Amino acid sequence: RFGLGYLEDRAVTTTTASGATNVFAGDDTILVSRFRLNIDGIAETDGGVRFEARVRLQADENASTGEANSAGLNGARFSVIYGGLRVDAGNVSGAFDNLANYYGNEPGLESFIGQYSGVDYDFLGYSPTGSGANAVFFQYAVGDFAFGASYDQRTTYSAGVATDADRWDISATYTFNNITAALAYGQTDGGAGSDPSLTVLTLGAEFGDLSGTLFVADDATEVATTDGTAYGLSLAYNLGAATTLTFAYGDGSADADTQNYGIGAIYDLGGGASLRGGIGVSDCDVCADSTLRADFGAQFNF
Amino acid sequence: RFGLGYLEDRAVTTTTASGATNVFAGDDTILVSRFRLNIDGIAETDGGVRFEARVRLQADENASTGEANSAGLNGARFSVIYGGLRVDAGNVSGAFDNLANYYGNEPGLESFIGQYSGVDYDFLGYSPTGSGANAVFFQYAVGDFAFGASYDQRTTYSAGVATDADRWDISATYTFNNITAALAYGQTDGGAGSDPSLTVLTLGAEFGDLSGTLFVADDATEVATTDGTAYGLSLAYNLGAATTLTFAYGDGSADADTQNYGIGAIYDLGGGASLRGGIGVSDCDVCADSTLRADFGAQFNF
Amino acid sequence: RFGLGYLEDRAVTTTTASGATNVFAGDDTILVSRFRLNIDGIAETDGGVRFEARVRLQADENASTGEANSAGLNGARFSVIYGGLRVDAGNVSGAFDNLANYYGNEPGLESFIGQYSGVDYDFLGYSPTGSGANAVFFQYAVGDFAFGASYDQRTTYSAGVATDADRWDISATYTFNNITAALAYGQTDGGAGSDPSLTVLTLGAEFGDLSGTLFVADDATEVATTDGTAYGLSLAYNLGAATTLTFAYGDGSADADTQNYGIGAIYDLGGGASLRGGIGVSDCDVCADSTLRADFGAQFNF
Repeated sequence: RFGLGYLEDRAVTTTTASGATNVFAGDDTILVSRFRLNIDGIAETDGGVRFEARVRLQADENASTGEANSAGLNGARFSVIYGGLRVDAGNVSGAFDNLANYYGNEPGLESFIGQYSGVDYDFLGYSPTGSGANAVFFQYAVGDFAFGASYDQRTTYSAGVATDADRWDISATYTFNNITAALAYGQTDGGAGSDPSLTVLTLGAEFGDLSGTLFVADDATEVATTDGTAYGLSLAYNLGAATTLTFAYGDGSADADTQNYGIGAIYDLGGGASLRGGIGVSDCDVCADSTLRADFGAQFNF
Repeated sequence: RFGLGYLEDRAVTTTTASGATNVFAGDDTILVSRFRLNIDGIAETDGGVRFEARVRLQADENASTGEANSAGLNGARFSVIYGGLRVDAGNVSGAFDNLANYYGNEPGLESFIGQYSGVDYDFLGYSPTGSGANAVFFQYAVGDFAFGASYDQRTTYSAGVATDADRWDISATYTFNNITAALAYGQTDGGAGSDPSLTVLTLGAEFGDLSGTLFVADDATEVATTDGTAYGLSLAYNLGAATTLTFAYGDGSADADTQNYGIGAIYDLGGGASLRGGIGVSDCDVCADSTLRADFGAQFNF
Repeated sequence: RFGLGYLEDRAVTTTTASGATNVFAGDDTILVSRFRLNIDGIAETDGGVRFEARVRLQADENASTGEANSAGLNGARFSVIYGGLRVDAGNVSGAFDNLANYYGNEPGLESFIGQYSGVDYDFLGYSPTGSGANAVFFQYAVGDFAFGASYDQRTTYSAGVATDADRWDISATYTFNNITAALAYGQTDGGAGSDPSLTVLTLGAEFGDLSGTLFVADDATEVATTDGTAYGLSLAYNLGAATTLTFAYGDGSADADTQNYGIGAIYDLGGGASLRGGIGVSDCDVCADSTLRADFGAQFNF
């Protein structure tokens, strides 16, 4: 995908040899782009067990200076799939990252507006450009129900001290008629202090050309300025055969929680290509000023 | 491609931990090689618009020490193609880099001799191993005419100061019978000082087994020792069914302009493979000594 | 391949900004994994000469911290093949790395036990994740005989001094009935001092479901604590249709030579997938303590 991206008061930070940093006003409008290629290896045993391995090759623009970045490779993910059971190992997504309707509809070519903006908990997620975690994710689907769980064995090292920072999460999803409800809980080992945790409930529904998602979360990261309830919703409406309009709103009850909202449009060109654009505003209760962002461009799959 | 490369007085520079540099005499003859793989993604809309994305995977030898380098990925290029119109975005070639007969015939396995050697202007070019520019290039072909233009939004940062260094270039190409004439002009925003610029005229012609190119340029980079006229020519002659001889000469009117000339030979093995070699000399008016360089090896496409 | 790996007393070393290092006790059991993809380019001339080029994409876990690493690309290898003759250039394997039965059977998912453990000579080998050497390897097979030879032009640079460290090796292999015998010799230019060298003799034989290898080497690296004879053996036994048991033992006559032994099992799942595991002990005459290591997991080819 590629196009033009506008960000109000885009800033460029440079570091001199002596370690001092300078901040410059950058170009508000830059060329944005992403090249993403999944390299998948698949094998299936005589007994019907499926093994998969994936490495992703991705190139993005530098969102600060507007220059291009070289493409890079991320950490590998390995999967074993048998019937409704799936086990992922390596650079995996956790139960939140895989949760139905967690992200909802994200307007814009770059999906820069989301209903989850009030969440500050750092859950286990797939790293598209870095090495990611080395964790395990389990998923089991049976009838209308699906269950997920992940465990990430982590240790952080800071001068002279090693701290356990293991994290785990679980989820349950139930689909009835045109509605999907999903609930997830996760927590991180906080050592001597309290354990940060997150609870998320999502609802998704489809009514003909209109579909929408609802999002409520209890964000308990043990940081007063961002803890509390996070909430949001998103909508998508098919306007005729090729055009889709999207909307998203996300907010949180804490003073420093990010509030954002915006609308987007997608025009399908066929053959896996589409034109996409969006415009949105991001703000918070204690922020000096809100930030306007917009983009427009083409996305295609190959 | 791979083979042997000879460079007179090859030097290796090392840097110690304290920052001091040492220069050693390296091996004059080393193993040279290049592995290049274009990873292309293509999609075509129902309306016949073609989208393309490319990332290149390349590995080269270290030309200084003669050791191998690991392969790397470069910045991505995105293209939209419809009829005679083509728009590239990202890590693109500009109007000079795309100009007909700009490079002409370059003798040697490593194409180390070129008619353009007198040019010192830094035009927008495709980066095969780095991230490249994040620019836009337009091309439009109609009948015997073709037009090109590019624009690269750039800013350079040096301690405490941000300087605009945007650059643009345009070109026109006309083909009549067996002759192609091309003209291009480009300039770079020089801030408070003068804007460096470059004007290039090329002619290419084919007469049976012989083909040749002529090159004249006005190099105005606002640096006295290299400004002035740059000129050169190149020839290729098919000697029988499988052998091609090549020759190139390039020079400039300024004292520090590089003068080089050399001959090469290509023997086609079929199946996309060929044996290639060349020998040439590089010098300048104020250089202490000329440098002899030669190489020989095999090149194959896959 | 991926699975669980256990290493007794796994240690993590971190470096602070001021250069001090801290060693922590890591998790003994971690997720181990490897993603390996060979990117091969092949061309064949009209005369039947085959050209090949290979770059490998590989991702491994960080064996110290148990976290994942991003995937990377290694240095390229180029080959010319014609009849029984093969010439490799670039990031190549030498005569030892290519020697029949040098590695023998290596128990465990990660092949962590080997009959060659007593060898300390640093021979030319293929680098799966780094740039590797820029060397040449020749191989010629005729009837029951095969010959190999390699040459690596190297120079090492340390503060102010450049030292030649060229190395070469040769090998001969003879196969008669179910037995393969192979002999190899190599040495490295040691500058003013003595030249380190290595001589290896291997025997491999197959008797129905049982196969085995014998290994004897004269390790002359000019380091008293590791010089002397290195020896070992390995066995593989097919237990029914799908299961293979493996065993390896390696030792050396010098005090600091690594002694190791262990057993492994492979259960074939069909479709290129298998379950693998192993357990082994590593020790040396002057080591304070032995180290137990074990692993289990799945390996699949795609």
